[in-house]
Amino acid sequence: MATTLNRINALKQVAFRKGGFDSFIVFNSSNLTYFTGFSGASALLIPENGENTVYVYGVNYAQAKAELAEVKVELVERGENLIDKIAKQAKAFKIEKLAVDSLTIESWRALTKSLGSEKTLATDPNFIRDLRKVKDAKEIELMRKAAELTSEGMRAARETLAAGMREYEVAAEIEYAMRKQGCYGTAFDTIVASGVSSAFPHGGCSDRKIRKGDLVVVDVGATYKSYRSDMTRTFTAGKPSEKQEKLYQVVKTAQEKAFEAVKPNVKAADVDATARKIIADAGYGEYFVHNLGHGVGLEIHEPPTLSPDSKDVLAEGNVVTVEPGVYLVGYGGIRLEDTLLLQRKGAEKLTEGQSTLNKE
Amino acid sequence: MATTLNRINALKQVAFRKGGFDSFIVFNSSNLTYFTGFSGASALLIPENGENTVYVYGVNYAQAKAELAEVKVELVERGENLIDKIAKQAKAFKIEKLAVDSLTIESWRALTKSLGSEKTLATDPNFIRDLRKVKDAKEIELMRKAAELTSEGMRAARETLAAGMREYEVAAEIEYAMRKQGCYGTAFDTIVASGVSSAFPHGGCSDRKIRKGDLVVVDVGATYKSYRSDMTRTFTAGKPSEKQEKLYQVVKTAQEKAFEAVKPNVKAADVDATARKIIADAGYGEYFVHNLGHGVGLEIHEPPTLSPDSKDVLAEGNVVTVEPGVYLVGYGGIRLEDTLLLQRKGAEKLTEGQSTLNKE
Repeated sequence: MATTLNRINALKQVAFRKGGFDSFIVFNSSNLTYFTGFSGASALLIPENGENTVYVYGVNYAQAKAELAEVKVELVERGENLIDKIAKQAKAFKIEKLAVDSLTIESWRALTKSLGSEKTLATDPNFIRDLRKVKDAKEIELMRKAAELTSEGMRAARETLAAGMREYEVAAEIEYAMRKQGCYGTAFDTIVASGVSSAFPHGGCSDRKIRKGDLVVVDVGATYKSYRSDMTRTFTAGKPSEKQEKLYQVVKTAQEKAFEAVKPNVKAADVDATARKIIADAGYGEYFVHNLGHGVGLEIHEPPTLSPDSKDVLAEGNVVTVEPGVYLVGYGGIRLEDTLLLQRKGAEKLTEGQSTLNKE
Repeated sequence: MATTLNRINALKQVAFRKGGFDSFIVFNSSNLTYFTGFSGASALLIPENGENTVYVYGVNYAQAKAELAEVKVELVERGENLIDKIAKQAKAFKIEKLAVDSLTIESWRALTKSLGSEKTLATDPNFIRDLRKVKDAKEIELMRKAAELTSEGMRAARETLAAGMREYEVAAEIEYAMRKQGCYGTAFDTIVASGVSSAFPHGGCSDRKIRKGDLVVVDVGATYKSYRSDMTRTFTAGKPSEKQEKLYQVVKTAQEKAFEAVKPNVKAADVDATARKIIADAGYGEYFVHNLGHGVGLEIHEPPTLSPDSKDVLAEGNVVTVEPGVYLVGYGGIRLEDTLLLQRKGAEKLTEGQSTLNKE
């Protein structure tokens, strides 16, 4: 719990000292989990002068009272309006310059109306985005566990996948293996994309029967106490063809060179370029149709982004995926992905597992 | 595919004929799935005069081209800004009164700036909300399947749950059973909340070992082709006590009376009141800390809402949950939930399964 209070204090440091705000309201659900460790809150008011207050509906109130020791827990009663309730408290705290992380246009209008002035309000999601990019010790511990469980799921895929199985049957074995080891759920819908579907990065997981000779892209992630992980391997059902092996080596080399490039103080766009050049040089540039990678944490996609147009600079404590791919529509696709933790001198792979096309 | 075009035409009917708009932009991801049948789109522009256009990033472009026959598929290229691209097309279509389903304040500002005028823009999520409340034949077919798979998961819970198992181990058996039968994933994080955790409506699913005598709330949902279902049973590990049986009968009676009350043209608030009165009369009114139920479909919580302050009136084609509960903090909780389809004369239970506290 002290950890979450540290995070609130870190936000106050940047938003109040540097940003010039005197209060912050957090509405985004991942941000709420980050600052409270609790997933059932509806809002968190962080005033410069006053008590940090979590707003919770009746359904989650008893649990919030039991689990949250370091913030005030305020019940939003039936018939009460959350926005009005927060605005009333903000006025009581004599708040003059309020930041929110994110709001829909409707809620924005309701909040400015409740506050009585639009001038007091601004959005700045970047304070929190920048904090969340650098994982603290507690987060790293949870992400190691999520990655370990993810690797367990991939091991199950490698062991069970065979021609004749339906895509969802492979997913069943993966998810069962992760769950039995203590995972809290999947970090995203498991992808098992076989044959022509493997050429779609978000193809599968359908009732298609895997056929001998198919490429099968398996993209899997476990969640552990709200933290996520992400890993992809591509297998063949049966012995790979020469063309499949050749394509695989291109993607594998691209991934390995990217691993070496992932270091603190390196531009994320440069890491993307390293992998992209290898694929382009092999003649498949136009078939690598997505970014090289993304940050992972409480969300499956979060900053920093490893892409050609990314402005991010990598830093110690970032957790990112590196996932080059080649997708030949009508033929099939290959993607390889691991989740990496940036250490002071380079990247540590959190997900672990063999990387060969042939399962044997 | 004809189905999704029917849905677009139904929106045009209400938004253009009745609402006075001449175009609609859909951004919400469930709404995009509803109108296209595809889950990888980023926006859909529906002009009164012009072609319906789906906007897709490179990662999903090949799949969109392969799967979408009745709308134009537009690639958002690297470096292009989605909002600017749509605004440019809107201007080409000479759009004068544009509605959007939902937008963050930042995107709203970007869109009004791109359009060159705020006057052209309005949000109205209610057109789509009202359409989605009434499921069409295709949706009902998919929701029947999702409910069947959910019932399968609950059967696995009833069969395997025992003192000595960890909560997540029960979840593993539930999810494996659903997946093996062809489900596409869970509709929400499975809840297995035992002992004191069962008193929290969103308690579990942790590594807690289930003990003899515990109440165990199991809340589970399968997803089938993007459609969801929702079901809860409460079991005891071992023979129930007299107090547990008494509490269970209160909740069960409340649920049964609510089933009878669910009919077209009935106020959702009245159905909630029916169940709430039974629980209050038994002396547990203050321990029923949530709404009676919610709509289900592409999202796990969607309109209509069965609550004391709901303004919804039920109609044929609605799919809703009925889930009374009693939660005694420090002791345990009991919830019973099924997913119902409103037929012309009353409710049909889509989820099916025994309702007894004792597993035997």
